[in-house]
Amino acid sequence: MEILEERIRKDGVVKEGNVLKVDSFLNHQMDVQLFHEMGLEWKELFKDKPINKILTIEASGIGIACVVAECFNVPVVFAKKAASINLDGEMYTSKVESFTKKRVFDIIVSKKFLSPDDHILIIDDFLANGCAVMGLIDLINAAGATVEGVGIAIEKGFQQGGRMIREKGIQLESLAIVEGMNAETGEIVFRH
Amino acid sequence: MEILEERIRKDGVVKEGNVLKVDSFLNHQMDVQLFHEMGLEWKELFKDKPINKILTIEASGIGIACVVAECFNVPVVFAKKAASINLDGEMYTSKVESFTKKRVFDIIVSKKFLSPDDHILIIDDFLANGCAVMGLIDLINAAGATVEGVGIAIEKGFQQGGRMIREKGIQLESLAIVEGMNAETGEIVFRH
Repeated sequence: MEILEERIRKDGVVKEGNVLKVDSFLNHQMDVQLFHEMGLEWKELFKDKPINKILTIEASGIGIACVVAECFNVPVVFAKKAASINLDGEMYTSKVESFTKKRVFDIIVSKKFLSPDDHILIIDDFLANGCAVMGLIDLINAAGATVEGVGIAIEKGFQQGGRMIREKGIQLESLAIVEGMNAETGEIVFRH
Repeated sequence: MEILEERIRKDGVVKEGNVLKVDSFLNHQMDVQLFHEMGLEWKELFKDKPINKILTIEASGIGIACVVAECFNVPVVFAKKAASINLDGEMYTSKVESFTKKRVFDIIVSKKFLSPDDHILIIDDFLANGCAVMGLIDLINAAGATVEGVGIAIEKGFQQGGRMIREKGIQLESLAIVEGMNAETGEIVFRH
């Protein structure tokens, strides 16, 4: 997606260790007009799918998911990363390893909000090793619901997550795929 | 706000200990059409304020804030609840006590995203003891930015948060104010 790639080139910062900081518009400060454009793009890319719900994971996926959900006219459910006393009743759970926080945590969704009737689009800001998306797919499968697709803002094409999801036969639409980054020059190469 | 009160009566569940569960439409599953209506209401209520940014706190505030930000045509910044290796550079920090998680945590915002030029609307899903909003006001004051107002979906009118914020002279617009709840009958009384 042209405007997302342009924005990454303009405002993204490449750091050592294959870290791409996009916190000025994607995951700390958030440009909701850009999110709306992304929503329209995904709406077109998934136009043949009977999507009735969007699933994401806290925290930085929630903003994108909610703006995108307006384009699809469906509700959002977000998986939580830790138990809370407000989350009673039965829950679907899975385990996810965080690349940025270097730890394993549980993700949970109330059983009330995923059912066999649901046709789910997963939305998240980043795809790298794919652990978060795989955890969300686990939750959807446990509920007997259908994964209709995965929409990712930025995929790190040099990590395994994208391949893992595509090999499952799932429609994965990453709006920008980074093939490589150079922390010294700041150069970013996109896959087309 | 009539449609929010109706929705709380219809789908909210009153639990022992003054807990109001609204996780089917507000803070786990999220009704983005309702959030859009809330955004239009706040846009009218704050129409005289030169708001250029919305500040919220992860996780459940982010979805509302992003949909509302589309109505205001401004970006969102969300305060994070713990340090992450991706959050380098200097940060404004404050401490918040969580009612639902029964612990104290740090909230942080990168100094890049709050400046003396900013006129901030704070948005959150719940206001009870006011700790989260007070923490966000701390961050805004530390940056030399201006608090233009606070927009809350559901205020627990029988707790101190609303009074504390109004006594500071800040425009607080809670779209539903719960005066009392009865866990046995499920009755909810709103302030008008």
